[in-house]
Amino acid sequence: MQSAETEIGVVHTKARRASSAQIDALKGFGVATVHEVIGRGGLMEPYMRPVYRGAQLCGNAVTVLLQPGDNWMMHVVAELLQEGDVVVAGITADCPGGYFGDLLATSFMAHGARGLIIDAGVRDTAQYETMGFPVWSKYVCSQGTVKDTVGSVNVPIMCAGQLVRPGDIVLADDDGVVVVPNEMAESAAKGALARENSETDKRARFAQGELGLDMYSMRDGLKAAGLKYVD
Amino acid sequence: MQSAETEIGVVHTKARRASSAQIDALKGFGVATVHEVIGRGGLMEPYMRPVYRGAQLCGNAVTVLLQPGDNWMMHVVAELLQEGDVVVAGITADCPGGYFGDLLATSFMAHGARGLIIDAGVRDTAQYETMGFPVWSKYVCSQGTVKDTVGSVNVPIMCAGQLVRPGDIVLADDDGVVVVPNEMAESAAKGALARENSETDKRARFAQGELGLDMYSMRDGLKAAGLKYVD
Amino acid sequence: MQSAETEIGVVHTKARRASSAQIDALKGFGVATVHEVIGRGGLMEPYMRPVYRGAQLCGNAVTVLLQPGDNWMMHVVAELLQEGDVVVAGITADCPGGYFGDLLATSFMAHGARGLIIDAGVRDTAQYETMGFPVWSKYVCSQGTVKDTVGSVNVPIMCAGQLVRPGDIVLADDDGVVVVPNEMAESAAKGALARENSETDKRARFAQGELGLDMYSMRDGLKAAGLKYVD
Amino acid sequence: MQSAETEIGVVHTKARRASSAQIDALKGFGVATVHEVIGRGGLMEPYMRPVYRGAQLCGNAVTVLLQPGDNWMMHVVAELLQEGDVVVAGITADCPGGYFGDLLATSFMAHGARGLIIDAGVRDTAQYETMGFPVWSKYVCSQGTVKDTVGSVNVPIMCAGQLVRPGDIVLADDDGVVVVPNEMAESAAKGALARENSETDKRARFAQGELGLDMYSMRDGLKAAGLKYVD
Amino acid sequence: MQSAETEIGVVHTKARRASSAQIDALKGFGVATVHEVIGRGGLMEPYMRPVYRGAQLCGNAVTVLLQPGDNWMMHVVAELLQEGDVVVAGITADCPGGYFGDLLATSFMAHGARGLIIDAGVRDTAQYETMGFPVWSKYVCSQGTVKDTVGSVNVPIMCAGQLVRPGDIVLADDDGVVVVPNEMAESAAKGALARENSETDKRARFAQGELGLDMYSMRDGLKAAGLKYVD
Amino acid sequence: MQSAETEIGVVHTKARRASSAQIDALKGFGVATVHEVIGRGGLMEPYMRPVYRGAQLCGNAVTVLLQPGDNWMMHVVAELLQEGDVVVAGITADCPGGYFGDLLATSFMAHGARGLIIDAGVRDTAQYETMGFPVWSKYVCSQGTVKDTVGSVNVPIMCAGQLVRPGDIVLADDDGVVVVPNEMAESAAKGALARENSETDKRARFAQGELGLDMYSMRDGLKAAGLKYVD
Repeated sequence: MQSAETEIGVVHTKARRASSAQIDALKGFGVATVHEVIGRGGLMEPYMRPVYRGAQLCGNAVTVLLQPGDNWMMHVVAELLQEGDVVVAGITADCPGGYFGDLLATSFMAHGARGLIIDAGVRDTAQYETMGFPVWSKYVCSQGTVKDTVGSVNVPIMCAGQLVRPGDIVLADDDGVVVVPNEMAESAAKGALARENSETDKRARFAQGELGLDMYSMRDGLKAAGLKYVD
Repeated sequence: MQSAETEIGVVHTKARRASSAQIDALKGFGVATVHEVIGRGGLMEPYMRPVYRGAQLCGNAVTVLLQPGDNWMMHVVAELLQEGDVVVAGITADCPGGYFGDLLATSFMAHGARGLIIDAGVRDTAQYETMGFPVWSKYVCSQGTVKDTVGSVNVPIMCAGQLVRPGDIVLADDDGVVVVPNEMAESAAKGALARENSETDKRARFAQGELGLDMYSMRDGLKAAGLKYVD
Repeated sequence: MQSAETEIGVVHTKARRASSAQIDALKGFGVATVHEVIGRGGLMEPYMRPVYRGAQLCGNAVTVLLQPGDNWMMHVVAELLQEGDVVVAGITADCPGGYFGDLLATSFMAHGARGLIIDAGVRDTAQYETMGFPVWSKYVCSQGTVKDTVGSVNVPIMCAGQLVRPGDIVLADDDGVVVVPNEMAESAAKGALARENSETDKRARFAQGELGLDMYSMRDGLKAAGLKYVD
Repeated sequence: MQSAETEIGVVHTKARRASSAQIDALKGFGVATVHEVIGRGGLMEPYMRPVYRGAQLCGNAVTVLLQPGDNWMMHVVAELLQEGDVVVAGITADCPGGYFGDLLATSFMAHGARGLIIDAGVRDTAQYETMGFPVWSKYVCSQGTVKDTVGSVNVPIMCAGQLVRPGDIVLADDDGVVVVPNEMAESAAKGALARENSETDKRARFAQGELGLDMYSMRDGLKAAGLKYVD
Repeated sequence: MQSAETEIGVVHTKARRASSAQIDALKGFGVATVHEVIGRGGLMEPYMRPVYRGAQLCGNAVTVLLQPGDNWMMHVVAELLQEGDVVVAGITADCPGGYFGDLLATSFMAHGARGLIIDAGVRDTAQYETMGFPVWSKYVCSQGTVKDTVGSVNVPIMCAGQLVRPGDIVLADDDGVVVVPNEMAESAAKGALARENSETDKRARFAQGELGLDMYSMRDGLKAAGLKYVD
Repeated sequence: MQSAETEIGVVHTKARRASSAQIDALKGFGVATVHEVIGRGGLMEPYMRPVYRGAQLCGNAVTVLLQPGDNWMMHVVAELLQEGDVVVAGITADCPGGYFGDLLATSFMAHGARGLIIDAGVRDTAQYETMGFPVWSKYVCSQGTVKDTVGSVNVPIMCAGQLVRPGDIVLADDDGVVVVPNEMAESAAKGALARENSETDKRARFAQGELGLDMYSMRDGLKAAGLKYVD
């Protein structure tokens, strides 16, 4: 469901964009890592699943607002795409259907898009892995759509429980999808790098058998919280 | 799921409030009516259901951010309540449980609250109708909660797919819950009144057998859209 | 989802109708009773729930095929309604939303309709009980709809997992919804009467403590099937 | 799903029974209250919903293990019922259907049963309130069942995620269903009485405006946990 | 749920069959393509998922009606299978369970079957890819079944929301399952070929950057529908 | 939901363990096979899905009871792990979230654990296949957890609808998860071997076209049950 402030029937042609520096700095980090360093927020609902396993996506959010059973705006957004973009599609009412297929994927790729996040359904799902065009969706569904009602492009939308604005950075992998507000991109990248370095070190210590109980000095806290060991 | 910008561990004691004029102007209108006049937005997910049928609620949103399985913040928010408030509770991760019962309802009522909207579970559900304290929730669940981890009060939260900020106006009835951004309260009230007047007139004409086809002059549009009548 | 043979964009103005004799003969029987006597078939999916408890509905199916998020056909069907009709609405793709409200209910009642069965969502749900217009739906949802794409009226449709053709008889109560093919109406009514008489007798015997084990002579069958009694 | 140790094809005629003293001592307490005083356990899954609002149930568990689509054991259990019993029905595999209707309810009542808890579906749901026979079920469904495969009576079963043994006490209300192990009945009753008395006192204090923050001395804890108040 | 007209307890040994010409003409087309050219109908519910990714299936529907928790009819149908058949299994009431495993798959393959579509559960799911026997099911579940109650073979059934009659053609791939009525096989094949050729051409143009907006001449329609471009 | 008898706040350091003989004897059998030979019980709910396809797991159950949104006990259990263990994690209330990631997996592996079964959510799901650490979970979710509230280790827990006690044997594969009570390990292994041998023989006969109808002598039973063949 969309907010009362969502504009309908409008295409913003010069919306905010994340810089390639912002995108490159976040690329390669896991969704869980980035979610942790931006205050444990930004996750889309866990019903958003990748069409194929092992995909990774990081890019600039170009937003689309769809109408139920109608994919007209998917063609409108194609014209505005640039290298590094991720199309993030919300919808005015929950409605499975096949809003996107391999032809649109071809078109999006030709204009620089790196992938799609859609709070609805997609089809032609056997093709995306070969094409190298990763997709996260709520449904897989072949139901045909019409082109009768206008939505919007590049307005702030709700997608899978998250507010997404043009120019936010979106990351996705097997764990799901996280939205990084544009204003947080630099601090998120810094935090993610620090966390990853710290984890590399911890991973080595864990692999040698060191316990989290000791690494994180948890024993006193557990005792204080009332945990009892019984032989 | 909450946005990356959601503050945790903070209580805003002097948050924005809707005026009683704003609340009174919207009181009594149906959720569907108000949703229509604010651009067809603002609806919480349909999984939000009233504990008892026939309840109506309109008030100023005081927001609470809960942690999973923890209802500590429910006691914190009680102190800040005033006449006309509706407590709107979001959570950092989806988690059924009994975050609210008749004791808290008694406390909230004593401080002026009119009802509760909670994106989690409640218990003591046989009592609310008698008490006159309407509740819309995602779950009915008796599971006990703890008081170990802090959340927030009066920060913008996500609740059932909608962004809710302190001072927004929340309406709820058997149809569900709608959030009216504070800035739209006046126009929403005006629009709702106009729509209701128009509907009263239409209702009378429909009752006498006039068809929507004629009332809304739809016949040409249907023909143009390709509809065929067959004997 | 609809069958490949479903016509779109067509209104059959002279579709088959159940006679009032057929409807009257089935009226008053429970959904479970009728389901049993027509070969244990005809039930819609259990997700179809009455908007208010205690309603009963029996009438001639007038079918409507909706498009997702679009309720245009609801106005088209109104013109064709007669006393004793039940509107049965299917949809080309699953999509919650508020396809029906109290204005349309007023219009439908003015033209003789007895109720609505809809494989989608409705709003204004606080009004139907007072109006005496029972509704069974998949969702309760206020989301506004558009009037942009045509569907059909009085074509065979899939509704909640059942094929419904114009002139079939539809019964609904707190247990759900059952579709009686028009050709089976007479035998269903006869069977339901016989079953109800038989149940009245059995109810009295059960009330006096007679066991089903004896009434239905089950003891030998249970033994043969291997059931063992252990002290 | 049932445990590997569940016996199939056996009826225990002299199973353990809760005493009427045990049942009477727990009768009248809410599900949430009892759940709290038995260590916050014993709740069935929240999908178990009452057929009608406002019902309360407390009694001795007589267990039945059903086979999918087969209600034969419902007739077998009727013979073993006594005043104060609650039939608790599990199933070997999840399967909606109408395993229970008003005839069986009449039979169960004639033999002393007070209600039914069933991890499957029931029908004739408009009748139970008038009959005074409360039912909590996973589904409402009219689908007819057969009498072909034996299950068990009075063996330990899994029902809606809880282990239920004959002689356990089962309580149910609008909040759901809780299972009290027979061995805990006395302490549960004592604890529930104490909690209820304490809550009566607290309810009065809450009604006069006292805050939980003060009643439970939470302010220091909140500060220690890092909560910050901001004007 | 099955229709009231569904026969139970009957095996039609000489049911209608699709010709190998009909099957070969449709083989290789995608589910989405075929769904489009048969009037956007025929799709099973999206809950039907392939056991392994990348499978494709096209064949003559041999229908089976199962009883809940009972897979007896799976052995009955095996005898009637011929090269090119796809077993399509419906059930009288929704019920997970392991109705099918690798032994039955071996048997079906030995008699010419190409795959299974089942509105219930299957097990041994690690084996089907190696065996080359694709399966689309509602559930993956190991729960054992019995052989106690008869269903039917080669009667019209409801499967995942679609009516399937013996001799219809069934196609399935990663996108889901579509049912082509036998009478439409030729026109569907023709249409699918035309659509695929057209798509090959469009794919090349999309890959070179041509926009759907221009390819489909959408700009005027969008303007007429009220879409506004804002810098 | 947990039973009323579940201990909270306790770590049993010397819990019962399955012997390596018991584990080795069951290793390699399929979940469906073992489920069949232990009386068709022991299955966890089908919502438990493997993070990656093709994994197999057999080991000694070390149980963990988590609190909602809190993974503290995951660090506590690590210290008690030995070669051959499988961590089985239940939770006091259903709550998605990322309770487990690749660091904990590294730690668990370093101490001998073979895999994880968790009635909640996990993250870092792209890593487990490469690491060779199989995981079955209810959710995939990145939501961060806290370390504030104690649960238990090595107490009997409910996990996905099954009671699991320390020292039970747990098997998992693409079909799901089965729990073998420790006392049944030997008979289960014997039974599984016998069943597998029998199936090898049957598989060969099925592959040559022999029908189950004949192999299992079903024809008379089907006739007696009323099945009719119609040309």
